[in-house]
Amino acid sequence: MTGTSTPGTGTGTSGTSTGRPRDPAVDRRIAAAAVELFGRAGWAGFSLEAVAREAGVGKASIYLRWSAKEDLLTDALASRLVDVADADTGTLRGDLLRLAHQMLALYLGESSRAAMRMTVEAPSIPGVAQRWDAMRDAQVLAARAMVRRGIRRGEIPDDTSVTMLLDTLCGGVVMHVSSAPGHLRERLVADLDDYAEGLVDFLLGAVHRPG
Amino acid sequence: MTGTSTPGTGTGTSGTSTGRPRDPAVDRRIAAAAVELFGRAGWAGFSLEAVAREAGVGKASIYLRWSAKEDLLTDALASRLVDVADADTGTLRGDLLRLAHQMLALYLGESSRAAMRMTVEAPSIPGVAQRWDAMRDAQVLAARAMVRRGIRRGEIPDDTSVTMLLDTLCGGVVMHVSSAPGHLRERLVADLDDYAEGLVDFLLGAVHRPG
Repeated sequence: MTGTSTPGTGTGTSGTSTGRPRDPAVDRRIAAAAVELFGRAGWAGFSLEAVAREAGVGKASIYLRWSAKEDLLTDALASRLVDVADADTGTLRGDLLRLAHQMLALYLGESSRAAMRMTVEAPSIPGVAQRWDAMRDAQVLAARAMVRRGIRRGEIPDDTSVTMLLDTLCGGVVMHVSSAPGHLRERLVADLDDYAEGLVDFLLGAVHRPG
Repeated sequence: MTGTSTPGTGTGTSGTSTGRPRDPAVDRRIAAAAVELFGRAGWAGFSLEAVAREAGVGKASIYLRWSAKEDLLTDALASRLVDVADADTGTLRGDLLRLAHQMLALYLGESSRAAMRMTVEAPSIPGVAQRWDAMRDAQVLAARAMVRRGIRRGEIPDDTSVTMLLDTLCGGVVMHVSSAPGHLRERLVADLDDYAEGLVDFLLGAVHRPG
């Protein structure tokens, strides 16, 4: 994630009149509450006061750290969402498996509803759209770097469509997770490894197609 | 779409005291306003009164037709969303191309925001979740029927994963559309035919992989 600063780092003091150092546990509780509230109620139901209530902390704890709810939401998302980041495992298959698992964790984890909702609402929230786009751009760049390394290593053809491979990989995960009925969720989670391997091998087969 | 009844069909009279027949243009305006409002403001901002305001019709026009906002929303979605339906073009490639175009129309059309939002919010709207699930189930069945016909005709191997093929096709479309920056939207729309062909051929290549 780029372009974001997370709460809980920095000067180490909250600036309250008591002079107590900031409590990382409180920061974590606030971030978790912000993400949960946004996922449930959206931007329409999001306010500094509602987050304080959800987190069970005094309003002062929030207002001392954030003056705008846009900043609170983007900080909370940056610290709570699964980081879809580049990692060089040495093979394209290894890299894509890791990416598939990161995407599955993002859309099955406790912050998944907030992530889905951001896709819908971010463009219409001033002051959030830009930072959300920056976070997504960093993820797309990381994913594209994986595929390009695979091409450079000669693992897949030069003319492989990087976008097509990544759209179908990431989109396949989102569709798989979001189309599963609630009562099958446990089985879905139990079968994640098999699913990720099946998906990656299916798409690598497309890249290596004959002709 | 199954399990839904659309406004504008039926007895042909609205039951108003004037006895005038229902006006299909008004019905269409109400449905369009309901879908637009839901896409913009979500369930939190959705009410019979707000839809009347958005449509520029008197509240009575709404209340005479719908007593519950759940019914108005699902009727409006059923009549406005692009219908992803089965169609036998004679070949699997033809069927999948048609499906890709239906999905692209759904996620690029004027109701796309409402469709995306339903994915996030439907599970938590009592009285809507069930009808939305029924609409989606009908679409999934239609898509699976296409692939099964391809297997029966011997176009693709017997052991083709129907789910994997459809998850990556539909997910690829959603990812392609939702990750395109706003300023590239015109180009996206201009390139739809090429994109759909590229996507379908890429995935059919995966199904036919050697080994």
